[in-house]
Amino acid sequence: MRQGNKILLNRISSLQRTFSSCKIDGLIFFDMNNIRYLTGFTGSDGALLINSDKTNLLVDGRYIAQASVETKGLRIMEYRDKIEGISQTIKKNRLKRIGFEANLITLGMYNQLKNSIPEENLVALNGELKFLRAYKDKTEIALMAKAAEISSSSIRSLIDRIKPGCTEKEVALELEVEARRVGADELAFSTIVAAGENAAFPHAKPTDRKIKRGDLVVIDFGVKYKGYCSDETCTIAFGKLTVRQKNAYQMVKSAHDRALAGIKANVPAARIDQCVRSVFGKKYKRFFVHSTGHGVGLEVHEAPRLFSNSTDILKTNMVVTVEPGLYIPGHWGIRIEDTVVVKKNSCEKLTKMDKELIIIE
Amino acid sequence: MRQGNKILLNRISSLQRTFSSCKIDGLIFFDMNNIRYLTGFTGSDGALLINSDKTNLLVDGRYIAQASVETKGLRIMEYRDKIEGISQTIKKNRLKRIGFEANLITLGMYNQLKNSIPEENLVALNGELKFLRAYKDKTEIALMAKAAEISSSSIRSLIDRIKPGCTEKEVALELEVEARRVGADELAFSTIVAAGENAAFPHAKPTDRKIKRGDLVVIDFGVKYKGYCSDETCTIAFGKLTVRQKNAYQMVKSAHDRALAGIKANVPAARIDQCVRSVFGKKYKRFFVHSTGHGVGLEVHEAPRLFSNSTDILKTNMVVTVEPGLYIPGHWGIRIEDTVVVKKNSCEKLTKMDKELIIIE
Repeated sequence: MRQGNKILLNRISSLQRTFSSCKIDGLIFFDMNNIRYLTGFTGSDGALLINSDKTNLLVDGRYIAQASVETKGLRIMEYRDKIEGISQTIKKNRLKRIGFEANLITLGMYNQLKNSIPEENLVALNGELKFLRAYKDKTEIALMAKAAEISSSSIRSLIDRIKPGCTEKEVALELEVEARRVGADELAFSTIVAAGENAAFPHAKPTDRKIKRGDLVVIDFGVKYKGYCSDETCTIAFGKLTVRQKNAYQMVKSAHDRALAGIKANVPAARIDQCVRSVFGKKYKRFFVHSTGHGVGLEVHEAPRLFSNSTDILKTNMVVTVEPGLYIPGHWGIRIEDTVVVKKNSCEKLTKMDKELIIIE
Repeated sequence: MRQGNKILLNRISSLQRTFSSCKIDGLIFFDMNNIRYLTGFTGSDGALLINSDKTNLLVDGRYIAQASVETKGLRIMEYRDKIEGISQTIKKNRLKRIGFEANLITLGMYNQLKNSIPEENLVALNGELKFLRAYKDKTEIALMAKAAEISSSSIRSLIDRIKPGCTEKEVALELEVEARRVGADELAFSTIVAAGENAAFPHAKPTDRKIKRGDLVVIDFGVKYKGYCSDETCTIAFGKLTVRQKNAYQMVKSAHDRALAGIKANVPAARIDQCVRSVFGKKYKRFFVHSTGHGVGLEVHEAPRLFSNSTDILKTNMVVTVEPGLYIPGHWGIRIEDTVVVKKNSCEKLTKMDKELIIIE
């Protein structure tokens, strides 16, 4: 299960190289996605303490065996109480100033930590860790491409089978079973299959509502493959659409295409969001009720963020979604979404479904 | 979608009645399970601000339509930036001292909040909210019984079909599909199907390993039904067990039965844990590498906690798991688990699988 140990050790070394500029001699992680990224450990609980010359993975009794199989080159230590284990390790290693994930630690955990480490020695890191996982390496991009291939092919195979009379729940289940059959480890998020008026809820949950002629059906689907997520949305028309729906679809498609055309290294994320909103114009932008996109990786939502006030700048090898949509409460909704890798002068789609309107008669 | 509005309003009223003892005039929630518990809103992001006389649900644009369908009797407000939205609402309502979930808010969020509300007016609530969702009412217990029925019947139906040669992943998928077919909304947690040496990892993920004769297979499975979780574990033997394995199973079974026999109102949770460890005795207790159980509800792990240092006291209508296990690294693992409702003088099983050893020849 040990994956690319050299890559992981390099990730830790590059953090260690920031110690002097952050004025710390230790760095503690609580976020399990960050811990997985740095060590390969896939458990659901633990802590990671990186010194200038060694790395301690702290886990409870459930995970001792798993941690020693999944990781290499770390000291694995068992705790009964996490904060107590951390304090002891910090003392044993004579660490003084400890950096930590300010945006992820809970206040309760921080207060406990303060009881054993003087507050002036706890260094809140925020911006320094914001993009820790944002730049994907080749291996990560390959895993994400595989995840995207699984979810795209599952949506495609569904198109031939889905018909009016199927419920949203049935469609979601078929999609999920197909994805597992072709290699998905698990879902990246709760599948959205939303028909007709339900599609006006951007984050609808599948219900027993049957799909009927005239419906637009939003399918937002993603899987995990070896930890990495995919994220893709298609909107499918059943039978004839109204002129307004057709125009709205074309508008969402234009917004999507324009946004993709704008993505390349060094472009501000906010500009991509602006680009989508400018296509919708005054009349429609109030029906686009969410942000344009987000980074994807070990988490389905991670840095960078593509919204109007985002200060993030897109960089080569970041992986982001573009997902414009229009939602008319009580009536219908449309969203299309691709996940792309940012390149120097363009972007490259990982998700594979074509985004032209699919009509099922 | 509005569910038991009176129940929800009562939950909010009982919080409002604690305002004077907590010396607050407002109470803010960020945890989405707590927000669902208090309002019925099932979205993935938002905040809830309860005043002494009104309740404000703050959501981003994605959730305005959904929040107004799912909730009743609340003011629904849209924010672009969550903390900004909260600060404005606090100002508009002229609130002074605001209580919040100290154990759940992130330090980053807290620091942002401090920028707009003087720190001396932010009242960290911890113990006061710890058991907010721990006492289940009739409706909740009925939903949890339904969730448990779905997962138990899915495990039972699997027993007839599972045979040597199936992979862990195949078994997990069959189980999940069956559960969805009989009404599960989604999984409560990632399904564990762990055969042979893999079962020695208490939190193993299903792999392509085939089940073979002589394996013990741990199946830990749970679903959500209308938001509420089930949690049950069975260990199945394929063909003949060694004497040591048979004895170990009986020991785990005794520990499980003794713990269940000890559960009733007003018993300290730590005593149940102790009871399990005393059955394992000196020789075996080091192979029981996790805690004895946990509360279950909208989250699969919630208060109370059943472990050696727990200070929680079991009370009528709490719902908890009992899940002793033994894990021999490199060889095999055994765990059995039931979810039960604490009663005045006993407990009542929600999970339905019998825990006598099942042998598949």
